[in-house]
Parts: sequence; C-alpha cells; structure tokens
Amino acid sequence: MSDAYIIGLGITRFARYPDREVESIAAEAIQKALADAAIGWGEVQQFYAAHVKQGVAAGQRVAKQVGPSGLPVLNVENCAAAGATAIREASLAIRAGEYDVVAVAGFEKMDPGLLAVYPDDDPRTVMGLTVLPMRFSLMGMKHMHEYGTTLEQFAQVSVKNHDHAIHNPIAQFPKAVTVEQVMNSRMICDPITVLQCSPTSDGAAAVIMCSDDFLKKHGRSRAVRVVASALTSDIDEQTRNMHTLEIMERAAKQAYERAGLGPDDLDVVETHDCFTVSELIAYEALGLCPKGGGGRMIDERQTWIGGKIPVNPSGGLLARGHPLGATGVAQIAEIAIQLRGEAGPRQVENARVGLASNTGMWSCCVTLLDRPR
Amino acid sequence: MSDAYIIGLGITRFARYPDREVESIAAEAIQKALADAAIGWGEVQQFYAAHVKQGVAAGQRVAKQVGPSGLPVLNVENCAAAGATAIREASLAIRAGEYDVVAVAGFEKMDPGLLAVYPDDDPRTVMGLTVLPMRFSLMGMKHMHEYGTTLEQFAQVSVKNHDHAIHNPIAQFPKAVTVEQVMNSRMICDPITVLQCSPTSDGAAAVIMCSDDFLKKHGRSRAVRVVASALTSDIDEQTRNMHTLEIMERAAKQAYERAGLGPDDLDVVETHDCFTVSELIAYEALGLCPKGGGGRMIDERQTWIGGKIPVNPSGGLLARGHPLGATGVAQIAEIAIQLRGEAGPRQVENARVGLASNTGMWSCCVTLLDRPR
Repeated sequence: MSDAYIIGLGITRFARYPDREVESIAAEAIQKALADAAIGWGEVQQFYAAHVKQGVAAGQRVAKQVGPSGLPVLNVENCAAAGATAIREASLAIRAGEYDVVAVAGFEKMDPGLLAVYPDDDPRTVMGLTVLPMRFSLMGMKHMHEYGTTLEQFAQVSVKNHDHAIHNPIAQFPKAVTVEQVMNSRMICDPITVLQCSPTSDGAAAVIMCSDDFLKKHGRSRAVRVVASALTSDIDEQTRNMHTLEIMERAAKQAYERAGLGPDDLDVVETHDCFTVSELIAYEALGLCPKGGGGRMIDERQTWIGGKIPVNPSGGLLARGHPLGATGVAQIAEIAIQLRGEAGPRQVENARVGLASNTGMWSCCVTLLDRPR
Repeated sequence: MSDAYIIGLGITRFARYPDREVESIAAEAIQKALADAAIGWGEVQQFYAAHVKQGVAAGQRVAKQVGPSGLPVLNVENCAAAGATAIREASLAIRAGEYDVVAVAGFEKMDPGLLAVYPDDDPRTVMGLTVLPMRFSLMGMKHMHEYGTTLEQFAQVSVKNHDHAIHNPIAQFPKAVTVEQVMNSRMICDPITVLQCSPTSDGAAAVIMCSDDFLKKHGRSRAVRVVASALTSDIDEQTRNMHTLEIMERAAKQAYERAGLGPDDLDVVETHDCFTVSELIAYEALGLCPKGGGGRMIDERQTWIGGKIPVNPSGGLLARGHPLGATGVAQIAEIAIQLRGEAGPRQVENARVGLASNTGMWSCCVTLLDRPR
C-alpha cells in the first residue's frame, strides 16, 4: 500500500480581501503549490476542496479558476477542521491506489454570521453560549481553577505566536506584542481579550500530494510524508470536562499509535490556537506535558522556537490568521516547510517529525508528518 | 486490498416533513440501516454525511441523534451527487484499510432558495438560465433537433417511473400517470411539464459498509459489493454539447474499465432523472444504446421492469422523490435491494450486476455493484 506525500505547497497571505472573490484567492494558493511541486494542473487527478461556508460546488468553481475544468472535485466540510480532514481523505485515496497525484486546497472568505452554528434549542444557545469566545473563556477559567493557570500564562501564548509570525511572510499580524499589551487589550469575554482571539481572516492554502510511484519519478528531495492522520468528532465533548480537549486527546493518541511515535518524538507542532486558551490546553491534549502542565510549558518558553518543542512557528491562528477552511491545510503546509528546512528565520533546527492538530467546533484531525526515508 | 461491501440499508419515506428536523429524518434512515445490518451504532467507526445545504456540522448533529456521539464524522458536499460521492469516500477508506465498518447517510430538507447556484456574473445567469428546468429544456430541445426525439418519448419516461414507484413503499408519488396527463400537466419550461420534473422532497437514505474482514464475521448472504466507483466534474460541460451528458459518459467509461464490465453486463440501473430529459439522455451516456437511441429505448419499453435493461425500478427522482443529498445513497440502496432479490413486486429478475448514476450540477459519480463471490 502506497504512502501519501506532500510534494508542493502554497499559501496566500492571510488578510482581509474585500475586493477579491474566494475563487481567485484559492486559485492563487493552488498555482503556488503547483509551481512549488513543478507539475501542471493537467497532471492532477482529483481536487479536494475544504471550506466551511463558501456555497454549493465551491470546489468546482475554484477548479475552473485554476485551469481547464474536468477533474473530479470533492467538497469537504468539517467545521474549522475541514482542511486537515480533506488532506486525510486525499491520503486515503492515495493509499487505496485510486490516485497518484491530487491537489487539496482550503479556503475561506469570512462573513460575519459564519460562526453561529448551534441550533436555537441547543442548551448552549439557551445559556447564551452562542459565541465562541464564551466557550473558551469558560475553558480557561476552569483550567485556572483546576490547575492554578494564570492570566499571564494565557497572554504569553499570544506574545509567542505574534513573535513567531514576524518571520512568516504570509502572516496577517506579523507584529510583536507584550504580555501587558495582550492583557490590557479590549476585553472580549473575561478572561479572553482581543489579542487572545484569532482574527477574522480571508485566505487559502494548498498542497499537492502523491503516491510512492509518482514520488519515484518526481524525486523525493523536498517531499514530506503523511505518517498518520486521525479524525475524531464529539458534539457533547464540552458538556463533560470543560478544561480538557478530549477529541484532540483521542485523535493524538490514535495518530501516535498508528505511527508508532509519541510526543517525545516530535520536533515541531502546529496546533489550533483559535484562542490562547486552546493552545495552552492543547499542550496537554497532545501529551507534550502532563495535565495541568500547560502554564509551566509557556512560562519556561518550551514552546517558543528554540525551546524544547516549538509550537506554532507559523504564528498560529492568533497571528498568522484563521480563514476557517484554509487553516488545517496551512498548518500542515507549515510543518512541511519546517521539515524541508525552508522556514528561514523561523526554522526549527533539525525538524524531522512534526504534528498538526486542526480542530473544528466538534471535530479534530491530527496529522503526523516526517521526511520519507 | 479489501473490497467494500454494503451490508445494511435504510430509507425514509420521501415526502415533505414540515414538522420534522432534518436530524430526525436522517437518524431514522440510519437506525433502519443498522437494524438491517444487525449491528449497533457502537460498531461503526466513521460516519459519512452527504448533504447540500443543511448547515455547518450537519453530520455531527445527525450522529448525536443516532446515539452516543464520538465517532469521526465527515461532511461531503458535491451538489446533488453528494450521496454517491460519500459512498465512494467510504469505499476508499475501507480499501485503504482505515476502517472495517462505516455508515453513510444522505439527507436533505429542501428550502426554496436551495437550487440557485450560479454566481451573479455567470453567463448562464446573465442569459436567464438560472433555474434548472431551463437547462434541461434546452438539452431536450437540442436532442429533439439532433435525433428526432419526440415529446411523447420524454413523457413516457415519467409514465414508466411513476408506474415503478407504485411498488416502492418509500416513494413520494406512487401513482400511475398517462402520457396525456404528463404532456398536459402544467408547463414549467417548454417542453418540460411539471410531471417531467422531480418533486421537492425531504428524506434520507443510509447504508452500512464494511471490509472483507468484517464481512467474514458478519456473513455474506445479503452483502452487495462496490465493484467500482468513478467521479467526474466539469463546470463547463453544458457550454459544449448541450444534448449530451459528458461527465456521465466519462464517469461510466471509467467505472466500466475499472470493473472490466460493460453496459451489456448490467441487469438493473438507477439513474438521475431530475427531469425526463436527463433520464433519456443518460441511456446514451451510460452506453445502454447508441447516441440518439434514447427515444427508441423508451418506445420499446426496454427500460421498464421486465424490459431489456430496467432503469429506475425505484421510481427514480421523478416519482420516488429527490431530497438532494439523499438521492445518490437511495439509488445505491435500491440497486442493493434489487441485487439481494428483496424488491418484491418491483424486483428485476436475476439481477446480478447493477449501476447507479448520481449527477449534481457539475459532478457525476457512477457506481457499479454486484454480489460478492
């Protein structure tokens, strides 16, 4: 059975694009990925489109922007985990022998009502928990209560990711911030301030993926291998343990088991810091530290570039930006850039094995990547 | 590499359900499929949800209705071809060795604006071709012009499918109609009258699928094998040859090649008769007759149950109904019922090999099925 490899990647600048259509933004990322892989659109056998709310047949419309239409298109929706989920579907098709080379793109142009997802009679709606910062503020407060995590520790996540983003040319907010600035920025939902929330972003990211056979012809010098990818969902998760990320724990456990790897084998991680709270709790869910150890990790700068296990060298959702469908693809693309050793001033030294953790409202997809042997 | 099998199926009655939520409708189909397979929800390893416009994380909401949530969920959108596309993704995951048993459900509650899909500046919108009957009326007129196809021949497709639907307990319109009634029914878009249009339907269909290993434990007496599944897309198709279905021709050709089968090997077909015109042209696209031979096929009753190659024994989209995301799953479920010999008064005798052709606006997924040897 063939492995699946990433042989090209492209990311647009994450920003607001009021004057561009989403098809044009997505096509830009795909063209960059094709150029990076040095292959043509005509060689691609299927196109996987990841988005949350870009309308019926968005993938078909994007494919037409890239070049002559006619290749099979699949649209994948999985809340903000759509991107990594689409890469997982592409990997499975390659493993099943269906295709030798495919393209995956995640893209989103955000509109204001896009994140109102709970039904009207959902208990969370009834309680007023209809806006995402509220959920994560409760998670953060419970974490503080259980483990003594501090407001400063959450704020440090934002400081780190903004610092990392300075060296990422596609980041939306490549700008240093201090703990004081983060804590004193506008309060959104106590304890989460505006600099602890991922911004509203438009953008796209794409990868070209291939099989063993195609890789032999193409050359493996810059290829990155998908070692394992695990998907979980759970609509009831947050009604149980508010201060944990159970679906991420389960996805990470499955991915580690399939790969025969553990947290100690990781050199670099991209995780889903939609809020500072979620990154700090992800350290624990991914097994980078024991439960309750997240605060200490950030205090000791273990997750900065140069630390024990750098997390979000791209700047993460907080500073690179978060166009929903694009995020998971951008995370995996960043890991690929790191494993290729092409990250320039944000390079994690000797990065051989990386993990990307992409979470949606009720879904999580964890992907492990390495260099082909 | 494992084959993929259908070992359980369930379909709700196709109807209008103004007082039911789509989650409840979908859960009913899944419960029926689980009961049919004699397995529990806890054994299912992933759930694939096919729908067009049921909102973010619709699959997750459906999974929660069925039972304890927690299994991975994938939402597939591919216009009206979503159902067969989701079954194809499930088949690939089984072939790749990722899962031994999965569930797929297609579901839709239709709302009035659901089918307005062209962007405002699309040439078709500018020409006023924004409503689906217009596209198919032009296809029909071109077919009449090219091949001498008659209005009566199109009408006969509706007569046949309504007649078949009488014997399908889940059909929305199980009621005989005559050629005169079809032709004299309200004109929607010349030459298409209302009885030549698929109705507005709510409903759901589900299948349980498994691997070789699971089948060995489960028993193969009622199992149906997915022999091949091919997906095509083309946003520009209709601007070339208006009187053909090129994406269906290509998908059928690929599926036949992969299976080592041809049109002459088929015993039963379900195809996408969103309008009478599309069924008649599908005869040609699927290779059941030469180009231009569709009219003669229906004249000679070759596609009635008891004819040379029965098409749409379920009643098709025209009379069984057409809840978008559900349709492709319902087509494949009908083929499975036929291959199991459980179709009662609408049974196609000695059905061993079947084909389902599921088309969306710009996509087509053709699936070949047989009995495991």
